[in-house]
Amino acid sequence: MIGPEIDRLIQLLAKLPGLGPRSARRVALHLIKRRDTLMEPLSEALAAAAAGIRTCHVCGNLDTSDPCHICTDRARENGTLCVVEEVGDLWALERTGAFRGQYHVLGGTLSALEGIGPDDLAIPGLLERASRPGVREVILALNATVGGQTTAHFLSDRLASCDVEITRLAHGVPVGGELDYLDDGTLTAALRARRAL
Amino acid sequence: MIGPEIDRLIQLLAKLPGLGPRSARRVALHLIKRRDTLMEPLSEALAAAAAGIRTCHVCGNLDTSDPCHICTDRARENGTLCVVEEVGDLWALERTGAFRGQYHVLGGTLSALEGIGPDDLAIPGLLERASRPGVREVILALNATVGGQTTAHFLSDRLASCDVEITRLAHGVPVGGELDYLDDGTLTAALRARRAL
Repeated sequence: MIGPEIDRLIQLLAKLPGLGPRSARRVALHLIKRRDTLMEPLSEALAAAAAGIRTCHVCGNLDTSDPCHICTDRARENGTLCVVEEVGDLWALERTGAFRGQYHVLGGTLSALEGIGPDDLAIPGLLERASRPGVREVILALNATVGGQTTAHFLSDRLASCDVEITRLAHGVPVGGELDYLDDGTLTAALRARRAL
Repeated sequence: MIGPEIDRLIQLLAKLPGLGPRSARRVALHLIKRRDTLMEPLSEALAAAAAGIRTCHVCGNLDTSDPCHICTDRARENGTLCVVEEVGDLWALERTGAFRGQYHVLGGTLSALEGIGPDDLAIPGLLERASRPGVREVILALNATVGGQTTAHFLSDRLASCDVEITRLAHGVPVGGELDYLDDGTLTAALRARRAL
Protein backbone atom coordinates (compact mmCIF):
# COMPACT_ATOMS: atom_id res chain seq x y z
CA MET A 1 0.00 0.00 0.00
CA ILE A 2 1.97 2.99 -1.30
CA GLY A 3 0.51 6.42 -0.49
CA PRO A 4 -1.24 8.31 -3.31
CA GLU A 5 1.41 11.11 -3.44
CA ILE A 6 4.26 8.65 -3.95
CA ASP A 7 2.18 6.58 -6.32
CA ARG A 8 1.39 9.59 -8.51
CA LEU A 9 5.05 10.61 -8.53
CA ILE A 10 6.08 7.11 -9.64
CA GLN A 11 3.41 7.07 -12.36
CA LEU A 12 4.66 10.37 -13.79
CA LEU A 13 8.34 9.39 -13.55
CA ALA A 14 7.57 6.15 -15.40
CA LYS A 15 6.45 8.25 -18.40
CA LEU A 16 9.93 9.69 -18.90
CA PRO A 17 11.92 8.18 -21.76
CA GLY A 18 14.23 5.40 -20.61
CA LEU A 19 12.42 4.86 -17.32
CA GLY A 20 10.05 1.97 -16.62
CA PRO A 21 8.01 1.19 -13.49
CA ARG A 22 11.00 -0.31 -11.67
CA SER A 23 13.46 2.48 -12.36
CA ALA A 24 10.71 5.06 -11.66
CA ARG A 25 10.35 3.60 -8.15
CA ARG A 26 14.11 3.75 -7.69
CA VAL A 27 14.19 7.39 -8.82
CA ALA A 28 11.26 8.24 -6.52
CA LEU A 29 13.04 6.77 -3.47
CA HIS A 30 16.26 8.52 -4.47
CA LEU A 31 14.36 11.83 -4.65
CA ILE A 32 12.50 11.33 -1.36
CA LYS A 33 15.79 10.69 0.42
CA ARG A 34 17.24 13.91 -1.04
CA ARG A 35 14.31 16.22 -0.45
CA ASP A 36 16.22 19.47 0.06
CA THR A 37 19.12 18.90 -2.28
CA LEU A 38 17.31 17.39 -5.25
CA MET A 39 13.54 16.93 -4.98
CA GLU A 40 12.58 20.54 -4.25
CA PRO A 41 15.17 22.06 -6.62
CA LEU A 42 13.96 19.74 -9.40
CA SER A 43 10.33 20.69 -8.76
CA GLU A 44 11.27 24.38 -8.97
CA ALA A 45 13.44 23.90 -12.07
CA LEU A 46 10.56 22.11 -13.81
CA ALA A 47 8.11 24.86 -12.85
CA ALA A 48 10.53 27.59 -14.00
CA ALA A 49 11.17 25.81 -17.30
CA ALA A 50 7.46 25.16 -17.86
CA ALA A 51 6.65 28.81 -17.23
CA GLY A 52 9.55 30.35 -19.13
CA ILE A 53 10.49 28.24 -22.12
CA ARG A 54 8.98 28.99 -25.51
CA THR A 55 9.69 28.09 -29.12
CA CYS A 56 11.60 30.72 -31.12
CA HIS A 57 9.31 31.75 -34.01
CA VAL A 58 12.32 32.39 -36.23
CA CYS A 59 14.38 29.21 -35.93
CA GLY A 60 12.33 26.80 -33.77
CA ASN A 61 14.87 26.66 -30.92
CA LEU A 62 13.64 26.38 -27.33
CA ASP A 63 14.59 29.32 -25.12
CA THR A 64 13.19 31.72 -22.56
CA SER A 65 13.21 34.56 -25.08
CA ASP A 66 11.58 34.75 -28.52
CA PRO A 67 13.49 35.32 -30.80
CA CYS A 68 16.00 33.08 -29.05
CA HIS A 69 19.49 34.03 -27.87
CA ILE A 70 21.09 32.50 -30.95
CA CYS A 71 18.86 34.43 -33.40
CA THR A 72 19.55 37.73 -31.59
CA ASP A 73 23.28 37.14 -31.03
CA ARG A 74 24.96 39.83 -33.13
CA ALA A 75 28.32 38.05 -32.86
CA ARG A 76 26.98 35.16 -34.97
CA GLU A 77 27.10 35.37 -38.72
CA ASN A 78 23.82 35.40 -40.62
CA GLY A 79 25.14 34.13 -43.94
CA THR A 80 24.96 30.42 -43.04
CA LEU A 81 21.80 28.52 -42.10
CA CYS A 82 22.16 25.10 -40.48
CA VAL A 83 19.01 22.97 -40.85
CA VAL A 84 18.46 20.34 -38.14
CA GLU A 85 15.63 17.92 -37.40
CA GLU A 86 15.15 18.57 -33.69
CA VAL A 87 16.25 20.94 -30.94
CA GLY A 88 18.42 18.14 -29.51
CA ASP A 89 20.47 18.20 -32.72
CA LEU A 90 20.90 21.97 -32.37
CA TRP A 91 22.16 21.43 -28.79
CA ALA A 92 24.59 18.77 -30.02
CA LEU A 93 26.03 21.12 -32.66
CA GLU A 94 26.22 24.00 -30.17
CA ARG A 95 28.20 21.82 -27.76
CA THR A 96 30.92 21.42 -30.39
CA GLY A 97 31.34 25.19 -30.63
CA ALA A 98 32.31 24.59 -34.28
CA PHE A 99 29.37 26.46 -35.84
CA ARG A 100 28.81 30.19 -35.46
CA GLY A 101 25.95 30.72 -37.93
CA GLN A 102 22.19 30.48 -37.54
CA TYR A 103 19.97 27.42 -37.14
CA HIS A 104 16.63 26.28 -38.50
CA VAL A 105 14.78 23.49 -36.67
CA LEU A 106 12.50 21.50 -39.01
CA GLY A 107 10.65 19.69 -36.24
CA GLY A 108 11.05 16.22 -37.76
CA THR A 109 11.47 14.53 -41.12
CA LEU A 110 9.13 13.73 -43.98
CA SER A 111 7.46 10.37 -43.45
CA ALA A 112 4.78 8.88 -45.68
CA LEU A 113 4.21 6.13 -43.11
CA GLU A 114 3.53 8.54 -40.27
CA GLY A 115 1.70 10.98 -42.54
CA ILE A 116 4.22 13.79 -42.07
CA GLY A 117 4.30 15.96 -45.20
CA PRO A 118 6.10 19.21 -46.05
CA ASP A 119 3.32 21.26 -44.43
CA ASP A 120 3.96 19.62 -41.05
CA LEU A 121 7.57 20.79 -40.96
CA ALA A 122 9.03 24.31 -40.75
CA ILE A 123 9.81 24.33 -44.48
CA PRO A 124 8.07 27.59 -45.56
CA GLY A 125 10.07 29.52 -42.95
CA LEU A 126 13.28 27.90 -44.17
CA LEU A 127 12.61 28.84 -47.81
CA GLU A 128 11.83 32.40 -46.76
CA ARG A 129 14.99 32.68 -44.65
CA ALA A 130 17.16 31.08 -47.37
CA SER A 131 15.91 33.66 -49.90
CA ARG A 132 16.99 36.64 -47.79
CA PRO A 133 19.89 38.69 -49.13
CA GLY A 134 23.17 37.79 -47.43
CA VAL A 135 22.40 34.10 -46.97
CA ARG A 136 25.10 32.22 -48.86
CA GLU A 137 24.96 28.65 -47.58
CA VAL A 138 22.38 26.20 -46.21
CA ILE A 139 23.87 23.21 -44.36
CA LEU A 140 21.45 20.27 -44.28
CA ALA A 141 22.60 18.75 -40.96
CA LEU A 142 19.95 16.02 -40.96
CA ASN A 143 20.41 12.54 -39.52
CA ALA A 144 22.01 9.96 -41.82
CA THR A 145 18.79 7.91 -41.64
CA VAL A 146 16.30 7.14 -44.41
CA GLY A 147 13.95 9.85 -43.11
CA GLY A 148 16.72 12.40 -42.75
CA GLN A 149 18.17 11.75 -46.19
CA THR A 150 14.76 11.76 -47.92
CA THR A 151 14.05 15.11 -46.30
CA ALA A 152 17.50 16.43 -47.30
CA HIS A 153 16.83 15.57 -50.96
CA PHE A 154 13.40 17.18 -50.83
CA LEU A 155 14.84 20.35 -49.27
CA SER A 156 17.69 20.50 -51.75
CA ASP A 157 15.11 20.47 -54.60
CA ARG A 158 13.05 23.19 -52.96
CA LEU A 159 16.12 25.32 -52.17
CA ALA A 160 17.40 25.12 -55.77
CA SER A 161 15.55 28.33 -56.64
CA CYS A 162 17.27 30.24 -53.84
CA ASP A 163 20.70 31.62 -54.61
CA VAL A 164 22.50 29.58 -51.91
CA GLU A 165 25.07 26.83 -51.74
CA ILE A 166 23.56 23.64 -50.31
CA THR A 167 25.86 21.40 -48.28
CA ARG A 168 25.53 18.36 -46.03
CA LEU A 169 27.64 16.96 -43.18
CA ALA A 170 30.55 14.68 -44.20
CA HIS A 171 30.22 10.91 -43.85
CA GLY A 172 33.21 9.01 -42.50
CA VAL A 173 34.87 7.14 -39.68
CA PRO A 174 33.80 8.57 -36.28
CA VAL A 175 36.77 10.04 -34.39
CA GLY A 176 38.01 7.25 -32.09
CA GLY A 177 36.11 4.64 -34.11
CA GLU A 178 37.53 1.29 -35.20
CA LEU A 179 37.20 0.18 -38.82
CA ASP A 180 36.32 -3.37 -37.83
CA TYR A 181 33.13 -2.22 -36.11
CA LEU A 182 31.93 0.14 -38.85
CA ASP A 183 29.15 -0.77 -41.25
CA ASP A 184 30.01 -1.19 -44.94
CA GLY A 185 28.15 1.97 -45.99
CA THR A 186 30.16 4.22 -43.69
CA LEU A 187 33.43 2.55 -44.65
CA THR A 188 32.65 2.95 -48.38
CA ALA A 189 31.77 6.60 -47.85
CA ALA A 190 34.96 7.21 -45.85
CA LEU A 191 37.06 5.56 -48.54
CA ARG A 192 35.49 7.56 -51.35
CA ALA A 193 35.87 10.84 -49.46
CA ARG A 194 39.51 10.16 -48.53
CA ARG A 195 41.76 13.16 -48.04
CA ALA A 196 45.47 13.83 -48.60
CA LEU A 197 47.48 13.56 -45.38
CA MET B 1 24.29 27.97 -26.08
CA ILE B 2 21.50 26.44 -24.00
CA GLY B 3 19.49 28.83 -21.82
CA PRO B 4 20.15 28.76 -18.05
CA GLU B 5 16.69 27.37 -17.18
CA ILE B 6 17.09 24.37 -19.50
CA ASP B 7 20.70 23.93 -18.42
CA ARG B 8 19.76 23.83 -14.73
CA LEU B 9 16.96 21.33 -15.45
CA ILE B 10 19.39 19.07 -17.31
CA GLN B 11 21.96 19.31 -14.49
CA LEU B 12 19.37 18.22 -11.92
CA LEU B 13 17.95 15.43 -14.09
CA ALA B 14 21.47 14.08 -14.61
CA LYS B 15 21.70 13.48 -10.84
CA LEU B 16 18.89 10.92 -10.91
CA PRO B 17 19.97 7.28 -10.69
CA GLY B 18 20.30 5.69 -14.11
CA LEU B 19 20.45 9.00 -15.99
CA GLY B 20 23.63 10.54 -17.39
CA PRO B 21 24.13 13.84 -19.22
CA ARG B 22 22.89 12.46 -22.53
CA SER B 23 19.72 10.84 -21.23
CA ALA B 24 19.09 13.89 -19.03
CA ARG B 25 19.02 16.06 -22.16
CA ARG B 26 16.64 13.61 -23.82
CA VAL B 27 14.35 13.66 -20.76
CA ALA B 28 14.48 17.47 -20.65
CA LEU B 29 13.40 17.75 -24.31
CA HIS B 30 10.68 15.15 -23.73
CA LEU B 31 9.38 17.19 -20.79
CA ILE B 32 9.54 20.54 -22.61
CA LYS B 33 7.49 19.10 -25.47
CA ARG B 34 4.86 17.84 -23.00
CA ARG B 35 4.59 20.91 -20.82
CA ASP B 36 0.93 20.59 -19.82
CA THR B 37 0.61 16.81 -19.69
CA LEU B 38 3.90 15.90 -17.99
CA MET B 39 6.21 18.77 -17.03
CA GLU B 40 3.82 20.79 -14.87
CA PRO B 41 2.17 17.71 -13.28
CA LEU B 42 5.61 16.31 -12.43
CA SER B 43 6.69 19.60 -10.88
CA GLU B 44 3.54 19.62 -8.76
CA ALA B 45 3.84 15.95 -7.79
CA LEU B 46 7.43 16.55 -6.67
CA ALA B 47 6.42 19.59 -4.62
CA ALA B 48 3.49 17.71 -3.04
CA ALA B 49 5.67 14.73 -2.19
CA ALA B 50 8.45 16.95 -0.81
CA ALA B 51 5.96 18.80 1.38
CA GLY B 52 3.93 15.82 2.51
CA ILE B 53 6.07 12.73 2.83
CA ARG B 54 7.62 11.85 6.17
CA THR B 55 9.23 8.80 7.73
CA CYS B 56 6.94 6.73 10.00
CA HIS B 57 8.51 6.79 13.47
CA VAL B 58 7.17 3.30 14.20
CA CYS B 59 8.26 1.25 11.18
CA GLY B 60 10.40 3.58 9.04
CA ASN B 61 8.03 3.51 6.03
CA LEU B 62 7.60 6.64 3.91
CA ASP B 63 4.07 8.04 3.91
CA THR B 64 2.13 11.28 4.24
CA SER B 65 0.94 10.30 7.72
CA ASP B 66 3.00 9.34 10.79
CA PRO B 67 2.34 6.60 11.94
CA CYS B 68 1.95 5.37 8.37
CA HIS B 69 -1.13 3.79 6.80
CA ILE B 70 0.23 0.30 7.30
CA CYS B 71 0.94 0.80 11.02
CA THR B 72 -2.54 2.22 11.61
CA ASP B 73 -4.41 -0.29 9.41
CA ARG B 74 -6.56 -2.24 11.85
CA ALA B 75 -7.22 -4.94 9.26
CA ARG B 76 -3.55 -5.98 9.36
CA GLU B 77 -2.40 -8.42 11.98
CA ASN B 78 0.13 -7.22 14.54
CA GLY B 79 1.55 -10.64 15.47
CA THR B 80 4.07 -10.77 12.61
CA LEU B 81 6.90 -8.31 12.01
CA CYS B 82 8.65 -8.32 8.64
CA VAL B 83 12.13 -6.74 8.78
CA VAL B 84 13.40 -5.21 5.51
CA GLU B 85 16.50 -3.23 4.60
CA GLU B 86 14.94 -0.36 2.68
CA VAL B 87 11.54 1.16 1.90
CA GLY B 88 11.88 -0.17 -1.66
CA ASP B 89 11.88 -3.71 -0.25
CA LEU B 90 8.70 -2.93 1.71
CA TRP B 91 7.09 -1.69 -1.53
CA ALA B 92 8.16 -4.88 -3.32
CA LEU B 93 6.56 -7.08 -0.63
CA GLU B 94 3.40 -4.94 -0.57
CA ARG B 95 3.02 -5.36 -4.34
CA THR B 96 2.79 -9.13 -3.88
CA GLY B 97 -0.18 -8.71 -1.52
CA ALA B 98 1.08 -11.90 0.20
CA PHE B 99 1.90 -10.31 3.56
CA ARG B 100 -0.69 -8.78 5.87
CA GLY B 101 1.42 -8.16 8.97
CA GLN B 102 3.57 -5.19 10.03
CA TYR B 103 6.93 -4.02 8.69
CA HIS B 104 10.13 -2.72 10.19
CA VAL B 105 12.58 -0.85 7.93
CA LEU B 106 16.19 -1.14 9.14
CA GLY B 107 17.55 1.59 6.87
CA GLY B 108 20.45 -0.48 5.56
CA THR B 109 22.70 -3.34 6.60
CA LEU B 110 25.68 -3.66 8.93
CA SER B 111 28.90 -2.88 7.12
CA ALA B 112 32.33 -2.69 8.73
CA LEU B 113 33.73 -1.28 5.49
CA GLU B 114 31.25 1.60 5.35
CA GLY B 115 31.33 2.06 9.13
CA ILE B 116 27.65 1.16 9.59
CA GLY B 117 27.17 -0.38 13.04
CA PRO B 118 24.07 -1.51 14.96
CA ASP B 119 23.50 2.06 16.25
CA ASP B 120 23.12 3.38 12.70
CA LEU B 121 20.19 1.05 11.94
CA ALA B 122 16.68 0.95 13.43
CA ILE B 123 17.58 -2.01 15.68
CA PRO B 124 16.53 -0.67 19.13
CA GLY B 125 13.02 0.00 17.79
CA LEU B 126 12.89 -3.53 16.35
CA LEU B 127 13.89 -5.15 19.67
CA GLU B 128 11.31 -3.05 21.48
CA ARG B 129 8.56 -3.98 19.02
CA ALA B 130 9.54 -7.67 19.00
CA SER B 131 9.24 -7.78 22.82
CA ARG B 132 5.65 -6.53 22.83
CA PRO B 133 3.01 -9.03 23.89
CA GLY B 134 1.21 -10.59 20.93
CA VAL B 135 4.21 -10.57 18.58
CA ARG B 136 4.81 -14.20 17.63
CA GLU B 137 7.07 -14.08 14.56
CA VAL B 138 9.82 -11.88 13.11
CA ILE B 139 10.53 -12.49 9.41
CA LEU B 140 14.04 -11.35 8.46
CA ALA B 141 13.31 -10.43 4.82
CA LEU B 142 16.82 -9.11 4.12
CA ASN B 143 18.60 -9.35 0.80
CA ALA B 144 20.46 -12.59 0.11
CA THR B 145 23.72 -10.61 -0.04
CA VAL B 146 26.71 -10.73 2.31
CA GLY B 147 25.55 -7.56 4.05
CA GLY B 148 21.97 -8.75 4.33
CA GLN B 149 22.91 -12.17 5.68
CA THR B 150 25.44 -10.77 8.18
CA THR B 151 22.76 -8.44 9.47
CA ALA B 152 20.22 -11.28 9.64
CA HIS B 153 22.57 -13.34 11.83
CA PHE B 154 23.24 -10.38 14.07
CA LEU B 155 19.51 -9.69 14.45
CA SER B 156 18.72 -13.33 15.10
CA ASP B 157 21.21 -13.27 18.02
CA ARG B 158 19.74 -10.07 19.44
CA LEU B 159 16.18 -11.33 19.04
CA ALA B 160 16.94 -14.62 20.85
CA SER B 161 15.89 -13.06 24.15
CA CYS B 162 12.47 -12.09 22.79
CA ASP B 163 9.81 -14.75 22.83
CA VAL B 164 9.34 -14.84 19.04
CA GLU B 165 9.87 -17.26 16.20
CA ILE B 166 12.58 -15.97 13.84
CA THR B 167 12.21 -16.88 10.14
CA ARG B 168 13.82 -15.91 6.86
CA LEU B 169 12.62 -15.98 3.24
CA ALA B 170 13.04 -19.26 1.39
CA HIS B 171 15.89 -19.69 -1.09
CA GLY B 172 15.18 -21.51 -4.34
CA VAL B 173 14.57 -21.37 -8.05
CA PRO B 174 12.89 -18.07 -9.06
CA VAL B 175 9.44 -18.68 -10.59
CA GLY B 176 10.00 -18.76 -14.35
CA GLY B 177 13.73 -19.30 -13.87
CA GLU B 178 15.83 -21.84 -15.76
CA LEU B 179 18.16 -24.19 -13.87
CA ASP B 180 20.93 -23.77 -16.40
CA TYR B 181 21.22 -20.07 -15.62
CA LEU B 182 21.14 -20.37 -11.83
CA ASP B 183 24.24 -20.08 -9.66
CA ASP B 184 25.38 -23.16 -7.75
CA GLY B 185 24.46 -21.73 -4.35
CA THR B 186 20.83 -21.17 -5.30
CA LEU B 187 20.57 -24.57 -6.95
CA THR B 188 22.07 -26.31 -3.89
CA ALA B 189 19.64 -24.43 -1.62
CA ALA B 190 16.69 -25.34 -3.86
CA LEU B 191 17.69 -29.01 -3.86
CA ARG B 192 18.10 -29.17 -0.09
CA ALA B 193 14.76 -27.49 0.52
CA ARG B 194 12.92 -29.72 -1.98
CA ARG B 195 9.23 -30.30 -1.34
CA ALA B 196 6.88 -33.26 -1.97
CA LEU B 197 4.79 -32.73 -5.12
